Amino acid sequence: MSEPMSKTNGGNYFEDFALDQELHHATPRSLNDGDRALYQALYGSRFCLQSSDEVARGLGLSTAPLDDLLAFHVVFGKTVPDVSLNAVANLGYAACVFAAPVHAGDTLTTTSRVIGLKENSNRKTGTVYVRSTGVKQTGETVLDYVRWVMVRKRDAASPPPPPSVPDLPNAVAARELQVPAWKFAAFDSARGGSPHLWDDYAVGEKIDHVDAMTIEEAEHQLATRLYQNTAKVHFNLHSEKDGRFGRRIVYGGHVISIARALSFNGLANAIKIAAINGGAHTAPSFAGDTIYAWSEVLDSFAIAGREDVGALRLRTVATKDLACAEFPWRDAGGKYHPAVVLDLDYTVLMPRQN
Amino acid sequence: MSEPMSKTNGGNYFEDFALDQELHHATPRSLNDGDRALYQALYGSRFCLQSSDEVARGLGLSTAPLDDLLAFHVVFGKTVPDVSLNAVANLGYAACVFAAPVHAGDTLTTTSRVIGLKENSNRKTGTVYVRSTGVKQTGETVLDYVRWVMVRKRDAASPPPPPSVPDLPNAVAARELQVPAWKFAAFDSARGGSPHLWDDYAVGEKIDHVDAMTIEEAEHQLATRLYQNTAKVHFNLHSEKDGRFGRRIVYGGHVISIARALSFNGLANAIKIAAINGGAHTAPSFAGDTIYAWSEVLDSFAIAGREDVGALRLRTVATKDLACAEFPWRDAGGKYHPAVVLDLDYTVLMPRQN
Amino acid sequence: MSEPMSKTNGGNYFEDFALDQELHHATPRSLNDGDRALYQALYGSRFCLQSSDEVARGLGLSTAPLDDLLAFHVVFGKTVPDVSLNAVANLGYAACVFAAPVHAGDTLTTTSRVIGLKENSNRKTGTVYVRSTGVKQTGETVLDYVRWVMVRKRDAASPPPPPSVPDLPNAVAARELQVPAWKFAAFDSARGGSPHLWDDYAVGEKIDHVDAMTIEEAEHQLATRLYQNTAKVHFNLHSEKDGRFGRRIVYGGHVISIARALSFNGLANAIKIAAINGGAHTAPSFAGDTIYAWSEVLDSFAIAGREDVGALRLRTVATKDLACAEFPWRDAGGKYHPAVVLDLDYTVLMPRQN
Repeated sequence: MSEPMSKTNGGNYFEDFALDQELHHATPRSLNDGDRALYQALYGSRFCLQSSDEVARGLGLSTAPLDDLLAFHVVFGKTVPDVSLNAVANLGYAACVFAAPVHAGDTLTTTSRVIGLKENSNRKTGTVYVRSTGVKQTGETVLDYVRWVMVRKRDAASPPPPPSVPDLPNAVAARELQVPAWKFAAFDSARGGSPHLWDDYAVGEKIDHVDAMTIEEAEHQLATRLYQNTAKVHFNLHSEKDGRFGRRIVYGGHVISIARALSFNGLANAIKIAAINGGAHTAPSFAGDTIYAWSEVLDSFAIAGREDVGALRLRTVATKDLACAEFPWRDAGGKYHPAVVLDLDYTVLMPRQN
Repeated sequence: MSEPMSKTNGGNYFEDFALDQELHHATPRSLNDGDRALYQALYGSRFCLQSSDEVARGLGLSTAPLDDLLAFHVVFGKTVPDVSLNAVANLGYAACVFAAPVHAGDTLTTTSRVIGLKENSNRKTGTVYVRSTGVKQTGETVLDYVRWVMVRKRDAASPPPPPSVPDLPNAVAARELQVPAWKFAAFDSARGGSPHLWDDYAVGEKIDHVDAMTIEEAEHQLATRLYQNTAKVHFNLHSEKDGRFGRRIVYGGHVISIARALSFNGLANAIKIAAINGGAHTAPSFAGDTIYAWSEVLDSFAIAGREDVGALRLRTVATKDLACAEFPWRDAGGKYHPAVVLDLDYTVLMPRQN
Repeated sequence: MSEPMSKTNGGNYFEDFALDQELHHATPRSLNDGDRALYQALYGSRFCLQSSDEVARGLGLSTAPLDDLLAFHVVFGKTVPDVSLNAVANLGYAACVFAAPVHAGDTLTTTSRVIGLKENSNRKTGTVYVRSTGVKQTGETVLDYVRWVMVRKRDAASPPPPPSVPDLPNAVAARELQVPAWKFAAFDSARGGSPHLWDDYAVGEKIDHVDAMTIEEAEHQLATRLYQNTAKVHFNLHSEKDGRFGRRIVYGGHVISIARALSFNGLANAIKIAAINGGAHTAPSFAGDTIYAWSEVLDSFAIAGREDVGALRLRTVATKDLACAEFPWRDAGGKYHPAVVLDLDYTVLMPRQN
């Protein structure tokens, strides 16, 4: 028997990362109909493809797929113990492509590769860029994305690695989207909840999603634990009450899922997320905040060889305690309106008229 | 590409309804074992038929059916965006017959037919009567009920439709109950939780259910989102804090489900709801309220051709912050005790002694 | 039709118990993937065997088993209406052996046998000892444990039964553990989340689990209803606000599950609970409390005939609002540190190095 040694995971520090390093994250996670129901109860989503096995079968799937963001949160959650336990800030993500849909019964694992490292000038922290890939038991990729976080150094005196910053696209290109071979032509917009299909949306169009949702502590904790995300700031009132905000911080992904669910009212037939091009949590959210959202159509593009489905690149902005009839975003100097908590740039698929 | 136009559903106004109009509500909803578990966690129900596949098999079913009220809430939720988004008040429901039981894997859709319209004398609102029908993927009806709501007019000057008020029964007649062909004779009351079967209940008997349940914001929000009910008053603290009550209002159906779960203590073997004859939410409920309940047996009737099962017509009254040992209800003038929040008239099936 | 009589279960009083009496508890409970997801959302557990069907298959199971403590809470919950509805205090439990693992689709029932009775000197209460056994639909025992509770007498003047106190072991002996015939040798500790296997843990070693979890009212109520545990003190703010603590008391089992989930950080590969040797809820927990935990390895023993798996006897101590770097427990006089809420003695199985 070996000597006692520390058994607790203290997380990685900046020095622990090396370029091209591969991280095999722990705790594979099987998703099932229970996760589907919890996701439903947490966000009240009404997109018909994820809500109905019958709608899914009409499009040629076996059953309703799980929500794209549920898969995202689970894949993301696995990276936290290895990547961001000692993070000071979650700086951004980019180039997230959704590939194989996830169904009840699938098991997800995540691996990450370090694709960039840059020490900060204060020598106390550095930025770590990782490309994380969620894979299911069949070997199929579920989603793939880049995230960069500011991580503490264990020791300011440690020598810095050669700076390396990956080249990241502003947006996932149309040709890189993985558009499923579903029969979108069979889509029934009456079941979808809106007569408006891809052809009806114009670039520059802004939509106030009108509805709103107040966050409760129990809700964001349930969500974040469902995703096995272990970041301490979401769960520990005892330490956070003496922290920067005096209370628990809501997992940013929880706000993304609320905004996506709210966006149904105006984007009802945007039944699949194809990509997340980038996103910023511009301010923290807390229990008691009421989240509103609005969207702008940033781009609209046809899919090569497909008459049945098109893509919309969207900006969805979420605010707290401010209705979005006036589309609050940034001022002339580029500074976010103080009520804005999320600025998400992503691409959805929507059936076309036929 | 068409011009930008409003994509957001603002709901229907009184003028938008026409007699005999059919509404095909959006977002079919597949129910599964996750919904079962969430319903369990939300209400703590102990009726053995819904709790146990083995009990269900003993009665001849394949698996435990989902709770009748879970199906009701989901069917009801679908109607909200089209029927009651601009409602001032939910006035009542009647003639609700539960037909085919719902099992994990079933997908529910709802359609409604306008069966009555009557403008109010103030010309600002009108009452809309709809018969809503929940159907599963097989085409079988799951439940069917009438609801009437007071809906805002878009314009007080619009001409009123010819007044039309449907004739509604006080209660679903015994012959209209859809009594399943289950083997109630095989029912084991020890597993059910009480020795008392149909023959033991007397008309006029009152039962204090003793137990109580305090409502939390996260709980009623989780429930109401699970049902995809989009009524804003349940979710938006930011707007409701300046509203009539200064806080979010609990979905009335949440209180019905709490009362039903509490009624186990005294009605343990009332394993199936056959009908809702009528109901009134006599006062709003809020988070922090503790719900108690009591029941009175209004009627007891045998089922033609069935020695194994009988029906009880019940009044279940729910109160907030008041124990029910004295059966609080109405005063001599018909006015409800201020603690009463629900007065529900419904019919249950209970196995008979054999 | 018989005369009206009380239909409400008022629970058993001390006089209602007789030595060797068998209690067949009501409400069999089928567990499914929804329960799995809710348990995940409530505690954020990351033990890989319960999280992943693929990990489970690697060990030779068909699917991921449900959490051992989920099964415990459900088996326990069934006993409450018959055993502890009139309990003054839950005094302890012992000799809990986990046998057949529980999978989605299994239905659990609980029976209890009265194995001890002793009136207290004040004549107002007595201690009831029961051995409760949870069985699944196949007849296999899922778990078996002894619990003793202090129960009110209906009438202080009732004659006491002959005092009888069962002989209970300090701990479940190694030979009584039911070690499953799984292929622990195939265990992948990288997936498990820690390189540390059974051989790495030394008797006397203490581990601070570092992480913490704040309890919300909605969470413990959801959990306790999921388990169909009907003890009133967990659910009724209206009565508890005038009670001993002025608020709802958290079900002790909820704290056990939190502590077990926190223990992942330091005991990641302790993938199965084999026994609960004893436990004390040393102080009540309430919503708003932040639970921390630490563990000590009390014993480490090989399993006869097994090179692939070993057992660790652990003490896991949970505190509220106190980090555990200094391992708070008891003072020299044996008195618990005021922050300690749980002192749990249990035995886990952990794969061995191979």
